[in-house]
Amino acid sequence: MPGYDGAVTIYSPDGHLLQVEYAQEAVRKGSTVVGLRTKDSIVMGVEKKAVDTLQVERTARKIRKLDDHLVVTFAGLTADARILLNRAQGEAQSHRLNFERPATVEYITRYIAKLKQSYTQSNGRRPFGVSCLIGGFDADGKPRLYQTEPSGIYYEWAANTTGRLGKTMREYLEKNTPAMSNSPDDAAAIKHVVRALHTSTALNASFYEVAVLKYQQPLHMVSPTMVAHLVQVIKQEVADEEARLKKSLDTKTYARPLWAGQK
Amino acid sequence: MPGYDGAVTIYSPDGHLLQVEYAQEAVRKGSTVVGLRTKDSIVMGVEKKAVDTLQVERTARKIRKLDDHLVVTFAGLTADARILLNRAQGEAQSHRLNFERPATVEYITRYIAKLKQSYTQSNGRRPFGVSCLIGGFDADGKPRLYQTEPSGIYYEWAANTTGRLGKTMREYLEKNTPAMSNSPDDAAAIKHVVRALHTSTALNASFYEVAVLKYQQPLHMVSPTMVAHLVQVIKQEVADEEARLKKSLDTKTYARPLWAGQK
Amino acid sequence: MPGYDGAVTIYSPDGHLLQVEYAQEAVRKGSTVVGLRTKDSIVMGVEKKAVDTLQVERTARKIRKLDDHLVVTFAGLTADARILLNRAQGEAQSHRLNFERPATVEYITRYIAKLKQSYTQSNGRRPFGVSCLIGGFDADGKPRLYQTEPSGIYYEWAANTTGRLGKTMREYLEKNTPAMSNSPDDAAAIKHVVRALHTSTALNASFYEVAVLKYQQPLHMVSPTMVAHLVQVIKQEVADEEARLKKSLDTKTYARPLWAGQK
Amino acid sequence: MPGYDGAVTIYSPDGHLLQVEYAQEAVRKGSTVVGLRTKDSIVMGVEKKAVDTLQVERTARKIRKLDDHLVVTFAGLTADARILLNRAQGEAQSHRLNFERPATVEYITRYIAKLKQSYTQSNGRRPFGVSCLIGGFDADGKPRLYQTEPSGIYYEWAANTTGRLGKTMREYLEKNTPAMSNSPDDAAAIKHVVRALHTSTALNASFYEVAVLKYQQPLHMVSPTMVAHLVQVIKQEVADEEARLKKSLDTKTYARPLWAGQK
Amino acid sequence: MPGYDGAVTIYSPDGHLLQVEYAQEAVRKGSTVVGLRTKDSIVMGVEKKAVDTLQVERTARKIRKLDDHLVVTFAGLTADARILLNRAQGEAQSHRLNFERPATVEYITRYIAKLKQSYTQSNGRRPFGVSCLIGGFDADGKPRLYQTEPSGIYYEWAANTTGRLGKTMREYLEKNTPAMSNSPDDAAAIKHVVRALHTSTALNASFYEVAVLKYQQPLHMVSPTMVAHLVQVIKQEVADEEARLKKSLDTKTYARPLWAGQK
Amino acid sequence: MPGYDGAVTIYSPDGHLLQVEYAQEAVRKGSTVVGLRTKDSIVMGVEKKAVDTLQVERTARKIRKLDDHLVVTFAGLTADARILLNRAQGEAQSHRLNFERPATVEYITRYIAKLKQSYTQSNGRRPFGVSCLIGGFDADGKPRLYQTEPSGIYYEWAANTTGRLGKTMREYLEKNTPAMSNSPDDAAAIKHVVRALHTSTALNASFYEVAVLKYQQPLHMVSPTMVAHLVQVIKQEVADEEARLKKSLDTKTYARPLWAGQK
Amino acid sequence: MPGYDGAVTIYSPDGHLLQVEYAQEAVRKGSTVVGLRTKDSIVMGVEKKAVDTLQVERTARKIRKLDDHLVVTFAGLTADARILLNRAQGEAQSHRLNFERPATVEYITRYIAKLKQSYTQSNGRRPFGVSCLIGGFDADGKPRLYQTEPSGIYYEWAANTTGRLGKTMREYLEKNTPAMSNSPDDAAAIKHVVRALHTSTALNASFYEVAVLKYQQPLHMVSPTMVAHLVQVIKQEVADEEARLKKSLDTKTYARPLWAGQK
Repeated sequence: MPGYDGAVTIYSPDGHLLQVEYAQEAVRKGSTVVGLRTKDSIVMGVEKKAVDTLQVERTARKIRKLDDHLVVTFAGLTADARILLNRAQGEAQSHRLNFERPATVEYITRYIAKLKQSYTQSNGRRPFGVSCLIGGFDADGKPRLYQTEPSGIYYEWAANTTGRLGKTMREYLEKNTPAMSNSPDDAAAIKHVVRALHTSTALNASFYEVAVLKYQQPLHMVSPTMVAHLVQVIKQEVADEEARLKKSLDTKTYARPLWAGQK
Repeated sequence: MPGYDGAVTIYSPDGHLLQVEYAQEAVRKGSTVVGLRTKDSIVMGVEKKAVDTLQVERTARKIRKLDDHLVVTFAGLTADARILLNRAQGEAQSHRLNFERPATVEYITRYIAKLKQSYTQSNGRRPFGVSCLIGGFDADGKPRLYQTEPSGIYYEWAANTTGRLGKTMREYLEKNTPAMSNSPDDAAAIKHVVRALHTSTALNASFYEVAVLKYQQPLHMVSPTMVAHLVQVIKQEVADEEARLKKSLDTKTYARPLWAGQK
Repeated sequence: MPGYDGAVTIYSPDGHLLQVEYAQEAVRKGSTVVGLRTKDSIVMGVEKKAVDTLQVERTARKIRKLDDHLVVTFAGLTADARILLNRAQGEAQSHRLNFERPATVEYITRYIAKLKQSYTQSNGRRPFGVSCLIGGFDADGKPRLYQTEPSGIYYEWAANTTGRLGKTMREYLEKNTPAMSNSPDDAAAIKHVVRALHTSTALNASFYEVAVLKYQQPLHMVSPTMVAHLVQVIKQEVADEEARLKKSLDTKTYARPLWAGQK
Repeated sequence: MPGYDGAVTIYSPDGHLLQVEYAQEAVRKGSTVVGLRTKDSIVMGVEKKAVDTLQVERTARKIRKLDDHLVVTFAGLTADARILLNRAQGEAQSHRLNFERPATVEYITRYIAKLKQSYTQSNGRRPFGVSCLIGGFDADGKPRLYQTEPSGIYYEWAANTTGRLGKTMREYLEKNTPAMSNSPDDAAAIKHVVRALHTSTALNASFYEVAVLKYQQPLHMVSPTMVAHLVQVIKQEVADEEARLKKSLDTKTYARPLWAGQK
Repeated sequence: MPGYDGAVTIYSPDGHLLQVEYAQEAVRKGSTVVGLRTKDSIVMGVEKKAVDTLQVERTARKIRKLDDHLVVTFAGLTADARILLNRAQGEAQSHRLNFERPATVEYITRYIAKLKQSYTQSNGRRPFGVSCLIGGFDADGKPRLYQTEPSGIYYEWAANTTGRLGKTMREYLEKNTPAMSNSPDDAAAIKHVVRALHTSTALNASFYEVAVLKYQQPLHMVSPTMVAHLVQVIKQEVADEEARLKKSLDTKTYARPLWAGQK
Repeated sequence: MPGYDGAVTIYSPDGHLLQVEYAQEAVRKGSTVVGLRTKDSIVMGVEKKAVDTLQVERTARKIRKLDDHLVVTFAGLTADARILLNRAQGEAQSHRLNFERPATVEYITRYIAKLKQSYTQSNGRRPFGVSCLIGGFDADGKPRLYQTEPSGIYYEWAANTTGRLGKTMREYLEKNTPAMSNSPDDAAAIKHVVRALHTSTALNASFYEVAVLKYQQPLHMVSPTMVAHLVQVIKQEVADEEARLKKSLDTKTYARPLWAGQK
Repeated sequence: MPGYDGAVTIYSPDGHLLQVEYAQEAVRKGSTVVGLRTKDSIVMGVEKKAVDTLQVERTARKIRKLDDHLVVTFAGLTADARILLNRAQGEAQSHRLNFERPATVEYITRYIAKLKQSYTQSNGRRPFGVSCLIGGFDADGKPRLYQTEPSGIYYEWAANTTGRLGKTMREYLEKNTPAMSNSPDDAAAIKHVVRALHTSTALNASFYEVAVLKYQQPLHMVSPTMVAHLVQVIKQEVADEEARLKKSLDTKTYARPLWAGQK
């Protein structure tokens, strides 16, 4: 099939843009990230690759400020993301300068999405291999959360996730997010994000990075100690739930005659 | 056949522009949209993909204003559509500025169509994978509805549909639209559009989005409740029709001797 | 044979420009159009695709004014034609502005032909998939009719046709046009054009569109009623002719012994 | 062998420029043209394709003035020729303007040849598929005749021919031209050109077009009647010659014993 | 697989940028380099290819100053590195000029990383085949060490290594670096770097080059004599360790009955 | 092997520039040319293709003045040569204008060579298929002779030859040129050049063209009569030599016993 | 393997830049050149291809001045070298003009190396097929010698060689150069260079060209007579050495019993 993905992003006979889909594949190989919008906060959480013991964590951070009121994270090619987000950061600054007020969250999202789309229709340039979660506050003080894809598509979300993610995590998010969306309880929101990541990755706590952005406040990175503590709590909860579930199942099993085959 | 769709939109030996046809394929994979022009309104309806429960509906909206007097929807690649429609929106604004009156519906349609055609004849750029329905009002206060294809073709319509659409829907539209075209009854028109979508997609009401544009009035999004109500009404009507039809068929069947095999 | 039609219009080993020939193939797939030059009129006729009942006929029109004294129609890719003819229209206007008199019919034809040729010799752009019939009046008040091909060739004609056309139509035109060329009888000319289209397409009358341009008069679209009437007249004539022919053949057959097998 | 003629005019391993040779093939598919330089005239003759009865002959003319003192004809792609000769015509006009005297015949030939060569060495453009015969007068009042090839080669000739030509014609020209070169007899020259065309094509007279250019005189198109008359005369001469030849052969045959097989 | 790495850096179906991965392969073929950040120094060490006895060592040096406060080394294509580092050097100078203070280490790292990324997304240019270690001091007098990859990714490190490196070396670094990171003992740091290189390459001492950069001090190249001395010390240490290990193993072996099979 | 000579002049795995070698092949297919530098003259001789009897010799001339003091001839593609030499001629004129003295022979040679080289390293342009012999006089009145190849290589020569040439000719030149190099005898030099051409081509005299350039004198074309005369003289000499050689061989043969087999 | 070296210099899967390696192959096909840096001189020597007896040696010279204080020679494509060195010469002149002092040897080397590297990373241009030896003097009066490769790599050398070279020559150079490096004896240095060339090529003396550059002195070309004399001396020395060696071997052989098999 080399002819279809030769030199530029073109259509395959069944209407697909293969280079865009391959870029999406690069995103699906990236670390898992989660974004959540509560009543008055944006909470971002990322799975961190097993950091080399020699690496300085600061530069490995994947949650980043774009402007005082904007926080962003991403899944996919880190180098591509850096270029893309630097340009977005420049646009945010230039917006402040030109219009004497911060850009809205959607404005910056649109800017990123447009840049991405243009690379899917340019002569001889590949699409960006990056999916971004962009959170922030508009002039009304309300939090907003957006996601953009390599194709240039974007939507607004109450919560979303991208990268190497499992079905369980999405199910967890869909089931448990609504309660969070109008809650002012940051602690609960942080725990929710950590638990979502834990659901998907089942990795050690030291590998999660979580940040909270509130209106007109600086970006707050949740301390690793707190994250570690939350992971312990979650582990216990999961264990309890499983125990409860097992007990309930056992009870039910007990109700069935022993000669009944397991279903 | 890679040679024919290698780097640019070129002709196949039998005179086809393959990249344009593949882009059309991308349109045929998009959600179904319907546009209707009544005596004094434009009604647009779209099938919505099963929206993730976490998605904020507002950004997922596919019916969009281009100018005070112009409404548009589309089927195909959302990111492409956004670029195309942003440029059209810019053109509409610039027309107002330069000529001190709004652009006609056909002017904007022509602008979009020309942009699309140019991407089918440019060195190394793929065509837009988008089909647009453009509705609006000219200075005479008359509603007009146009459709453009990835090739850059456009026509004016009393009603039309594009995207992943069934034959039944088109038949329904052709049969039932004429009565609407000169009717000032918006409620009937909205129901007509919902029923057309229902005919094709047979999905749950919450997945339809409907909007009405009237001369010198803001774009009116029909409430989900109303849409849901209409779907119930339509379901009942369809059930009644089928019952009637069945009865009539039974009567006829009755007329045939029992030993006659079913046809 | 992919190598010969890879990226640009180049020669095949036997001296053919394949992309140009494939573009011609796109023309041969288009609807049939006819142009006729009488003593003092240009008559254009087009076969119309079975128009969707919902389509607004006005935009589907394929006979178009380029300037007050110029009428044009085409076969092939509609979107390409629109671009090409818009540029020709611009050139006609600019000619009026710069030289304070209308462009001659040949001047505009040459402009279109030159544009077409340039796309057969450009780096990475495909030829236009359009054949145009261009009619109009020069300062001497004489009608002139030209045709251009995707290659950029053009000639002047007393009458011509292009698109999906049959041999019968061309034979009909060659046999019957000379009588028209110096006739001032528009009614006869219109009937001639309709009959030519009928010869080729044998379709229902509602699918022909006919227009007449006279010196210093606005373009006159022949009414569908008139076209329908003409089709009836022609059908009767054809039937009469066939009857006459059959009779004459029968007479001849009669002259042959009955046991002679049919030839 | 697609690799050698892929995107531009490049060398094959044995030092050939294939696209140039294929363009030459397009020339060899064109109508036959003849040019003759007599003592004080340029005579051009072309074979005309069986013109459609509806075609207006004027635009189908292949003998064309480039300037008051320059006449040109060509074989090959008509649309390419038009572009090439329009540019030459522009150059001739611009030469008059800049230098206040007409360009020499060789100057214009060189201009055309240079343009042709540049298309054999440009990135992504095909060579012109045209061979030109250029005749005219320099300031000394002497006629000159040149020919250019798709490669950009040009030479001066007493007489030459290009297009779909037979060996017989070239032999006829080589044998019979010298007598013409210093003759002031236009009538004889015209007959010579017609006979050369007749030798090669053996077609009906109505299909030859002949023109004569003399110093400081307008281009004279020989009337079709005259051409037809000359064809008749030539046919008679050919018949007479053949008769004479046959007789002479018969005499010789007679000299051979009857049992000798025909050679 | 030629289609995926044809003309530019594009995605393979599984989301990889092959040209970037091949450039990384070029890095993995380069000489091993090590960078270490101690409490107040940057120590860089490189394995030197067996230098031709005729080569002047000075130009073969791979540890280079970018600015008074910046030192850099690299693995991969030397010519690419020179271009890349010259541009970084220019940027450092221009930063001093424009902002009247030195660029931070991260600023220069970002500049290099951005340049690298841009070559992975440009039309027709290959990525840089270079991985850089960049060390230096910010205004706070603290040492910082970064590494950039051909993709444009960069991270900060306590110590890192790139090029043709073995697993043993990385293990050695991870185990032994932490003790160094806050140590002000340059001698120990130098020995640490030499031992790391020795672990990986086991080559003769004359083939290591080591440099130390301290805040507001000139770059100090460790003398070859010192390096040679350190290698001797390290060899002895390694021998001693191995002897100790052997002894301990022998003791254990002794403890097992002779008839036990070797594990 | 299409990959190596696809779109530009690139290296084959064994370090060859194939397009340059193919261009050299085009030179080897060209007519033979000879250049000779005597004490105070440049003599150029060319084999002429069997000129069509109708061709005007003047334009077919391959020996050409570049400036008053410069003469040039070439082998290979005539159209390429014309472009190349026109540019050289322009450079010569511009040199006179800018520096108020003629360009040296080497200056113009370098100019041509540089132009040729640039076409071997440009994006998408083929090399010139031409080898040039450039002769002329510098300010010291000394003749100089250079040759350039399609690659852009050039050297100075006492005498040289290029095109479709035989080994015999080169041997003849090498053996007999030294005597000419310091001779002021133009007649002998002309005969030398003719004999060299005769050695190689053994064609009829009318097909040689010979020219002599002396310091501050116009280019002198040797008359065809003189060339014809020289060919006769040479033929006689060759015959005499062969007779002498035969006689000498016979004598030697005689010395061998008759029963010795022929060697 | 055509895909990897298609249109530009790109990476092969194992991290090689194939076009650069093929260019290096072109260098390995070039004539052998040697450069030597003594205490106060640069000596350059080149193997000359068997010069055609008709060639004027002056232009065939491969040792060339770049500036008063700079001498250069090369192996590989002569036409490429000329372009490259002309640009370097221009840079040297421009440096003098701009900075009012000569460029250092390394500055010019860097300039050449940078130019070379840029052609390995440009869209659609092949690398230079040239390896250069650049010698000269800096302001301190010290000689310096550099070598650049097609990749753009450069190093400083006490002595080096490139082109079609044998292992013996490199071994000879490595063994015998150190004694020369600090010697002020030009005669010995010249003999050293000639012997190095002789070691590798074993050709006749007339085919070596040797030049010496000293601080603030013009470039001195060693006379062919001297070179020839040196070759004789060297031949004798080689013969003596071999005799000595043979004798010593014979003695040793004598020491072994006759029945011992040859080792």
